[in-house]
Amino acid sequence: MKKAYFITLEGGDGCGKTTQKQLLLDYLKNKQIDFICTREPGGSEAAEEIRKVILSGSKDKWDSVSETLLFFAARRSHLVETIWPAIRAGKWVISDRFADSTMAYQGYGRADGLLNRTDIEFLYNLVAKDFKPDLTIILDMDPQIALERVNKRGNMDRMEGMDLSFHQNLRSAFLDIAQKEPSRCVVINANQTPEKVHADIVFAIEERLTLC
Amino acid sequence: MKKAYFITLEGGDGCGKTTQKQLLLDYLKNKQIDFICTREPGGSEAAEEIRKVILSGSKDKWDSVSETLLFFAARRSHLVETIWPAIRAGKWVISDRFADSTMAYQGYGRADGLLNRTDIEFLYNLVAKDFKPDLTIILDMDPQIALERVNKRGNMDRMEGMDLSFHQNLRSAFLDIAQKEPSRCVVINANQTPEKVHADIVFAIEERLTLC
Repeated sequence: MKKAYFITLEGGDGCGKTTQKQLLLDYLKNKQIDFICTREPGGSEAAEEIRKVILSGSKDKWDSVSETLLFFAARRSHLVETIWPAIRAGKWVISDRFADSTMAYQGYGRADGLLNRTDIEFLYNLVAKDFKPDLTIILDMDPQIALERVNKRGNMDRMEGMDLSFHQNLRSAFLDIAQKEPSRCVVINANQTPEKVHADIVFAIEERLTLC
Repeated sequence: MKKAYFITLEGGDGCGKTTQKQLLLDYLKNKQIDFICTREPGGSEAAEEIRKVILSGSKDKWDSVSETLLFFAARRSHLVETIWPAIRAGKWVISDRFADSTMAYQGYGRADGLLNRTDIEFLYNLVAKDFKPDLTIILDMDPQIALERVNKRGNMDRMEGMDLSFHQNLRSAFLDIAQKEPSRCVVINANQTPEKVHADIVFAIEERLTLC
């Protein structure tokens, strides 16, 4: 019987995630794998409303407690309305960001002491129980280089407006998450040509998942 | 030294809360007490955005997990931006609904088994720590009578669209909450004339709080 996988793409701003997502989708199409592509925050009609609320306005609009609760409210809708129905229908789900982003940004990145990682694990369990991605691809690169790429694009949203040390914490957070769950996470060096990064991603998928 | 109190008004739809709130505010004005009046969900600019997201759309837009997380995200902003600054400035805060509504509506009322009361207590602690209302006024009446009042008004929002048994659960929930925290909560019979209900509220305030 065919198995439908849930794959998440993670990584700091400017790491080339959008490009790699498109290359991954082309690869799945070529393999004639049935899939949907989604994103966080958002991914369902209702969750996209929360996305707007999170991302609009000033950098201080939400403290880390409110922000984290909003992310998990959206994630619950994303799971119930989009991800779980797709998996049940035999479709792979590719999500541009998922819960590791919340853990990295809010659990490690903010460091305002309002939330700890146990709080975030509690919230994860509340919305997803024991459901987890089958594979999480973490695109890793020096934040200095990544931010230069973002600045060239010129359209920094609220998240991207944070400073360099924030992004350095974020990188360490993703690496720490990967180290704690090596069977789920793979760290890919994103400071290579897009073709090489893509080849590394395909290698990870073919090595870890049974293609149907 | 003057103490600023935090008073919350709770009760099912149609129990006359809006009228009683106005009478209470007039009473505070007469006593020359400095106060602000606020409401949930909402009560800060950012939390009002969440209010719109919660209350618009169909009755099935959010399951109880998403809805509860949205309420607590809004509550955090309400506390940080509005309630705590007012209390620090020596102003009483009167809130039309607060956390007991979430406990009653989502913890008891929905009964879909997705959340238990311990989950809701965990979330409360996450956003408010040990901060609680000094007095919670619970307006109590038979939901059948209350719903007839709501139907006469003719503008039922999503919450009010739920059926009678939901509102009966809600009433039991508020009574149970009051029984568990008698020093904080007072149950007022709302099926009396507005003047008599108001007199009962004033009696509770004068009995329990030190007026300045």
